[in-house]
Order: sequence, then structure tokens, then C-alpha cells
Amino acid sequence: MARVAVIGGGQLARMMQQSAIGLGLRLRLLAEGPDVSAAQVIPDMIVGDHTVLTDLEAAAEGAAVVTFDHEHVPPEHLRALAAAGHAPRPGPHALLYAQDKGEMRSRLTEMGVPCPRWAFVATAADVAEFGLPAVLKTTRGGYDGKGVWVVREPEDAEDAFSSGAQLIAEELVDFRRELSAQIARRPGGEVVAYPVVESRQAGGVCAEVVAPAPDLDPALAEAAAALAVRVATELDVVGMLAVELFETADGRILVNELAMRPHNTGHWSIDGAVTSQFENHLRAVADLPLGPSAPLRPWSVMVNVLGGRVEDLEGQLPAVFEAVPHAKVHLYGKAVEPGRKVGHVTVVGDDLDAVLANARRAAGLLVDG
Amino acid sequence: MARVAVIGGGQLARMMQQSAIGLGLRLRLLAEGPDVSAAQVIPDMIVGDHTVLTDLEAAAEGAAVVTFDHEHVPPEHLRALAAAGHAPRPGPHALLYAQDKGEMRSRLTEMGVPCPRWAFVATAADVAEFGLPAVLKTTRGGYDGKGVWVVREPEDAEDAFSSGAQLIAEELVDFRRELSAQIARRPGGEVVAYPVVESRQAGGVCAEVVAPAPDLDPALAEAAAALAVRVATELDVVGMLAVELFETADGRILVNELAMRPHNTGHWSIDGAVTSQFENHLRAVADLPLGPSAPLRPWSVMVNVLGGRVEDLEGQLPAVFEAVPHAKVHLYGKAVEPGRKVGHVTVVGDDLDAVLANARRAAGLLVDG
Repeated sequence: MARVAVIGGGQLARMMQQSAIGLGLRLRLLAEGPDVSAAQVIPDMIVGDHTVLTDLEAAAEGAAVVTFDHEHVPPEHLRALAAAGHAPRPGPHALLYAQDKGEMRSRLTEMGVPCPRWAFVATAADVAEFGLPAVLKTTRGGYDGKGVWVVREPEDAEDAFSSGAQLIAEELVDFRRELSAQIARRPGGEVVAYPVVESRQAGGVCAEVVAPAPDLDPALAEAAAALAVRVATELDVVGMLAVELFETADGRILVNELAMRPHNTGHWSIDGAVTSQFENHLRAVADLPLGPSAPLRPWSVMVNVLGGRVEDLEGQLPAVFEAVPHAKVHLYGKAVEPGRKVGHVTVVGDDLDAVLANARRAAGLLVDG
Repeated sequence: MARVAVIGGGQLARMMQQSAIGLGLRLRLLAEGPDVSAAQVIPDMIVGDHTVLTDLEAAAEGAAVVTFDHEHVPPEHLRALAAAGHAPRPGPHALLYAQDKGEMRSRLTEMGVPCPRWAFVATAADVAEFGLPAVLKTTRGGYDGKGVWVVREPEDAEDAFSSGAQLIAEELVDFRRELSAQIARRPGGEVVAYPVVESRQAGGVCAEVVAPAPDLDPALAEAAAALAVRVATELDVVGMLAVELFETADGRILVNELAMRPHNTGHWSIDGAVTSQFENHLRAVADLPLGPSAPLRPWSVMVNVLGGRVEDLEGQLPAVFEAVPHAKVHLYGKAVEPGRKVGHVTVVGDDLDAVLANARRAAGLLVDG
């Protein structure tokens, strides 16, 4: 029986397990605690720390392949696992560009990939020289709006510099909306591109995703998918890659972020595509031929359940299914905290307005009752 | 967190877990061994014997609801669990009719439900009086062609009587094909009927299922679904009910068997319907509003993977996905033995011939290479 080690016990690992069950792949999990999201559903589980090599080695034992719920495993540990015969997928040479925004910007710029104007900044003078308004970002460790500062006046930069982290400045892009282009890629280079989706953020966190992105210029959709394929190929990504994009007010696309794992903007594919991002991630890392990304129905809308007034999510299921019987509910087994991603809802169908309304209604019942 | 106890660690419990992960329902499993099919994917697992009350009680501890991978739990144990506050769903009063073919035939006949002509038989003389050809069946414990004898000459009945089991005789029905009508039913009576499917058997075992049944007279489809709703309602089934039917050469439907759990003839729904039979089984037993059974695409074909020449099923996945990238593969984590159900493949699409050919091709690669 093939065994794949998964580092990190969040909802991405949890949802991988649904696909692993069908494929007959046995997952071994390195979890942060005995009852974290994925630990609740993967029997072969070790509690440990992804920054400790011996814990990673214990999780990888007997597994030819190691993959990830997040991008926080230190590169030197990934190289040690590879040297011991456990292939990290994606590998450290690729993952670097999802771990470090400075490396990512440098490499993409070198490749000629359209990015916001950017620069490394170490002092307030650097920021002044770069020009305001600007966005300051820590090169490492930021996510979901953390490690990001919008700087309109010079004094806005003080918090960022007081963090002590390495920073880059980026222009504040005048964007129409955010898009996401996802790719699955096998070790040998086979790629499958998912439909480009629209990602709607609230407070720096993904709130909802519409697949495919409505009214997207077909030429821009094709360019976005081609860009994602090129990035996946040149960076040698194995598994799922998400390229988060800005669609600018003047009709261009600029790369915002890279994620090398299943991504929130691809959750719609569990219920809305022939092959979900989780199945294709596992097929890619296990070096199996990839599955088609075609939508099952014209529209899919995914709405995140961010912790709100409701504490007992399961207790809301009667109301949710009464209101929207065809809602596909995904709860992550996590304690509700304000704003925390604790689940999502997907609705698919032929009429976008109805699909959107139903997905929001179902998710709303899980957030605020 | 809601907890549902599942008795029996076969592939049905394994596939329930895929739906339970999304719904945030925690399953506790009573498994026949530490590495049986469902034990591989459900962390909260107890090894025990479903005929031993203390094992059942251990599995049910903390669970308001108990449900089943199979129908073999003794009724007196189910009543003891109910008395201790763990609702068996379906309950023993319903499950009786899936456990005992004599009880089932008596009750359905009393209800006026069309069945093959039948009688209890205890001796060769009873069989002669019933008339040949006939089918003899043990009232309890038969499945997948076991406990069934086709008797064309008086001496063919000897094996059946030598088994010592209680027997019924049934007419050998001149059927055109076999159909299956599935229903999900909640405790309060809410029901959802799945499309009536065609089930094709080989050697007494389900080989493939086409959903919906091709060229089925709409009036007959409606009658079959209505019959299944009536059976579920009058027998007070909670969870999934499968009514296996003969479509006779002269255009009638007769009940062959009842199953009160997710059923092989409903596996197509995982990939082919808005709500899978496993999700609706869990929604029904957890008393949540049911989901629609509508197909996602015009045709779904499910082909069983019955153990054949291939021993390393996972080793065949590259060939399967190379040949049919959109095949949905479900492996059960079971050792391959000749004829044993070790997995299934579903393909969905618009063109039945292509869907059927691709499903057979993918499954064939997992059986014979």
C-alpha cells in the first residue's frame, strides 16, 4: 500500500484524506496536536513539530513521498529528508518561492512575469524612495493579512520596521478584482490547469470564490493559465500551485502571491470539478496521471465559514440543510474563534445569482446563525 | 462534536467516512480487526465482535446514534442498545426485514407489494409441491449468491436442505433485467428517492450499475420509486434503503431483496449525484434534512472491481488514469482474493456508450491488468 507523509494537520490535510480514501493511498500525518483538524480523520498520526528534523523523519518513515499542509518546513530539513530517500513534493528548491516573498519577486521579475513594482526596503528612507502609498510585506511567515502593512504616510511604516523582519515594498495596485490560477503538476512535467477563478477578500482573508471568474476576458483567462503553467514549470513545482493574481483596472494581470499546496481558492473543485484539487495534489505527488479539471456544472461558488457568533457549527446543520438542501458543507473540526477559517460551503448550478445567494445563505447560517 | 457509532469495518463504513469528514460528524467504528477497510481511515476505532453485546456497548459509548456497515447485528443486542439510549438506525423492528427473508416476504405480501411467488419449505416434498424450477434461499445470512440454490430437478435441493437452515422457495422469475430503487429516510418520515438504476449481475454478484436505468418506462420508474418509499415508510426504515427489483419480461416489477444501509447499487452517487448515498445515510441517521439525489450528469456507470489477476491495485493506478483520466477510482484497502469486492470505478458523462466503455476499461485494468 502506497504511503504518503503529510506534514501539518490543518484542513488541507483533512481534505486530502477524503481523496486518499478513494485512491487507496495511506496517509501518515505529522500533526501539531492529537486532535487537530486532520488528526481527527487520519489514523496513522504522529504528534510533533514540523521545525524538528527528528519529528519529520519519524513521519516520513516508510513513505517514499512527503507533502505538506503548509509551507513552513525549514528548507534544510527538506533537503535532509530528500537525502534520506523521502522525496519532498514540492521540493525545497521550488518551495523557497512560496516561503520567501523576496526570493519570489526576484525570480518572477527575472523571468519577466508581470508583478507589482517592488523593492527590498530596510529603512524609512528606502520606503520614501520607493514612494507612497505602498504595501510593506515581511518576506517570510505572513499569511491571511498578517505580516502586511498598507503604508500611506511615512509613519505608517513604523509597525512594519518594529517587527524586525526583512521587508519588501510593493506598489498599492489599483485592481478591479483578485483572480487565482491553479495548476497541478507531476514530477515529469505533466500539468493540468484549473479554470481561473475570482477570489473575493474581506479583511485580507479569502471570503468567497466564484468559479470560473465571471465575465473574464477569454484572452486574459488564457494568459493567466499560461502564466501559472510557466511558473509551475520553471520553478519545478510538484503538486498543486496557486498563483494569486490582481486583475488591474486597466486590464492587466499581476502576480500577487504563490502557494504550493491545495489552496482556499480551489476548494470549489471538491464539489464542482471532475477532479478536486486534493485528488490532483495527491495524484501529482504520487506521480499518477492527473485528472481533468473541467467543471461539473457551469458555476460553483465557495464561501468560507469564518468564526462568528455560532459556536456549535454541527448544531446549525439542520438550519443550513433546511435552507439549502444542496449546499455542500465542509466543517474542519476546529474550535470557533473570531475570523478563524472553520469550514466552507460550496454550491454548484446553472444560474450564478442563485448559486451565489444559496452559498452565502448556507455559510451565513454557520457564521451568524 | 456529534458522534455516530458505525458497526462493521467494511467498505461501506470506509466510504461513510468520506462524507463524515465534510459534515464534521465523528465516527466511532467497531471493526473486525485493526486493519480492515474502514479501520484504515477512522481513527476512533475499537476492535470487536458485532455479536458480542459488550463490544457493541463499548463502540456506542458517547454516541447518540448507532448505524451499520452490514445487517448482522443480533436484534436482541439492538434492543439492548436502544434501551441504553443509543438509537440504532435503522432500528431492530425495521432491520428484521433485511435480516430475514421469510419475515420480509411475509410482510411485503401482507402489504400487497409485488413479490415473486414464494413459500416456506422444510422438505423435498414441500419443494415438489411448490413446483420446479424454483430458487431456494436461506432466510438468514445469505448474500452475494451465497445461501441461494437454483433448483431445476428434485435432487438439486439436497445441498440446500443439508445446510440445515430455514428455507424459502421462490419462483424462478423470467426477468428482463434487475433494477434498484434507493430511498433515504429520516426518523420523522422525510424521504428522498434516488433515480432507479439498472444493476447487472455476474455469478450472483453485482458487476455494474447504470444510473439511471436506460430506456426504463417512466411509469415503471415512478412505480418503483413509489414502492420503495412505501416500503421505507411502512417498515419505518431510517437511513438508506435499497429495494432490489426484477423487471419481468412482461413489464412488471417484483421485489427481490431489501438492504437497509448504503448499497452497492448506489455507489455511483458518490461521483454522480448532488448528494451521495453515504452523505444521505449519515444525514438521515443524524436526523439532518436530506440532500437532493439529482444526477450531476446524464449518465453514471459504476463497475465493481472484483479480485482478479491483479494483486497490486495501487500499482495499476498509472495505467488506469493514463487510459481514463476522468475515472473516479475507489479502492477499499482490502487484500485481493478471487471475486472479492476490492473497489469500484465510476465514470459520469453525457454519452452512455462512452461512459460505459470507459468505466469498464478502467475497472478491467484493476481486475486483469
